[in-house]
Amino acid sequence: MQNRNYENLKNELVSFLKFHLNKTGLACFTLGVSGGLDSAVVATLANFSQIKTHALIMPTKFSNPKNVDDAINLCKKLNFEYQIINIQPILDTFCNTLGENLTPLRLGNLSARIRMSLLYDNSARLNALVLGTSNKSELMLGYGTIYGDMACGVNPIGEIFKSDLFEFAKFLGVDDEIINKAPSADLWVNQSDEADLGYSYKTLDKVLKFIDKNGVNFKKLSQNFSDLELVKSVLNRVKKNKFKRELPKIARGVNARDFIL
Amino acid sequence: MQNRNYENLKNELVSFLKFHLNKTGLACFTLGVSGGLDSAVVATLANFSQIKTHALIMPTKFSNPKNVDDAINLCKKLNFEYQIINIQPILDTFCNTLGENLTPLRLGNLSARIRMSLLYDNSARLNALVLGTSNKSELMLGYGTIYGDMACGVNPIGEIFKSDLFEFAKFLGVDDEIINKAPSADLWVNQSDEADLGYSYKTLDKVLKFIDKNGVNFKKLSQNFSDLELVKSVLNRVKKNKFKRELPKIARGVNARDFIL
Repeated sequence: MQNRNYENLKNELVSFLKFHLNKTGLACFTLGVSGGLDSAVVATLANFSQIKTHALIMPTKFSNPKNVDDAINLCKKLNFEYQIINIQPILDTFCNTLGENLTPLRLGNLSARIRMSLLYDNSARLNALVLGTSNKSELMLGYGTIYGDMACGVNPIGEIFKSDLFEFAKFLGVDDEIINKAPSADLWVNQSDEADLGYSYKTLDKVLKFIDKNGVNFKKLSQNFSDLELVKSVLNRVKKNKFKRELPKIARGVNARDFIL
Repeated sequence: MQNRNYENLKNELVSFLKFHLNKTGLACFTLGVSGGLDSAVVATLANFSQIKTHALIMPTKFSNPKNVDDAINLCKKLNFEYQIINIQPILDTFCNTLGENLTPLRLGNLSARIRMSLLYDNSARLNALVLGTSNKSELMLGYGTIYGDMACGVNPIGEIFKSDLFEFAKFLGVDDEIINKAPSADLWVNQSDEADLGYSYKTLDKVLKFIDKNGVNFKKLSQNFSDLELVKSVLNRVKKNKFKRELPKIARGVNARDFIL
């Protein structure tokens, strides 16, 4: 039963990828492969689509070498063309230009935006559609960089919660090496998403799924979850980072046509 | 009459800026000031809001020095804190890392994304809301870099066509030095938007305003404009670059909930 569901999900997502490549008229896919679960799932789906895919592996000096190895092994296994681009010199030039010591948060955001810039440059070079790799938990929590790792052309896994991705990845044949590692944005050695967020994805996703179904409603949430700190923490992130899931606000209400005729 | 309209427009846009700063709870504004018309208008509106604004002036070696001077003069006139960041070393490091000669288009897109990265870093540093400076003509034509100059928190001029911005800028007291220069993305010496686009903004905006009112309809357009090459050129850009005005496509139709229970 579970298997049949995953088979359907896989087919739908592969169709989604093919549909959008065809619609845009682009020639192939490009994506960043980090060695983590999310990009491994997207890469595997791209591979099932049988459309040519060019991967970028973009470590900094903070990246765990194990992740780079896993990323290379994945690309080899899927027969992807890939390029390893050490982004540390670019990150260093940003820091030198700014002339100050940046916090880990600012370094992480810059790294994410450098990677986006390289993926979009690759997109221009190869006529490639940029695949996004943010999962639904990250998108809802806003746990990512706007105009960085959250930026893409199409994202096949943006409706799948992180805690569900592990099993789906297993179904797709992603290696245990990748499935079994702790989720990490890999912004510094041994960074852990779940330590950052204060809860496991399994715990967070229970609240996120409730919000996804019932909306942002503290009263309902507090009736369903005994851990109010958890509820508050999730709600706070969901609300605070809403802007990351939206287009820039343009002064539309104004309607310049009312003033300039 | 015209003046009264511009007064109302100014007031609406200043309220829009104040409303969004208040809504986000951020402390101030930041924007890139290029020495061109669009950023001058946004900077002037920010100044009228009486909210502290920190400007970045971010030239490359391709930037016209006159534009940098005009940008500095504007910041001084408005009493902005500002920083001049020569982004050429960052751009060079991108090129060295990529190890190839990039086309002007790729260089331009990288420059735009470096500027966005620096503005968002400034946003994190100062708790600042990033102001966008794309006008409606650019947004409709998609004449800009997605996740680059088109990226921002809020954009007060995104509903104003370029050909209307000149008079509005005059009304706002922007210097003639800035108003009278030829529109340019300043990606190489003496670049001209209108030469790139093949038509003047005045001509383009007639078609864009018709599309804005009546939708993308070739038949109607061809009945109203005798220059079919113009109509085709505009329609082509509007359609081809639609993705730049939209959020990434997430595999939503799929609804993972139907598969993963």
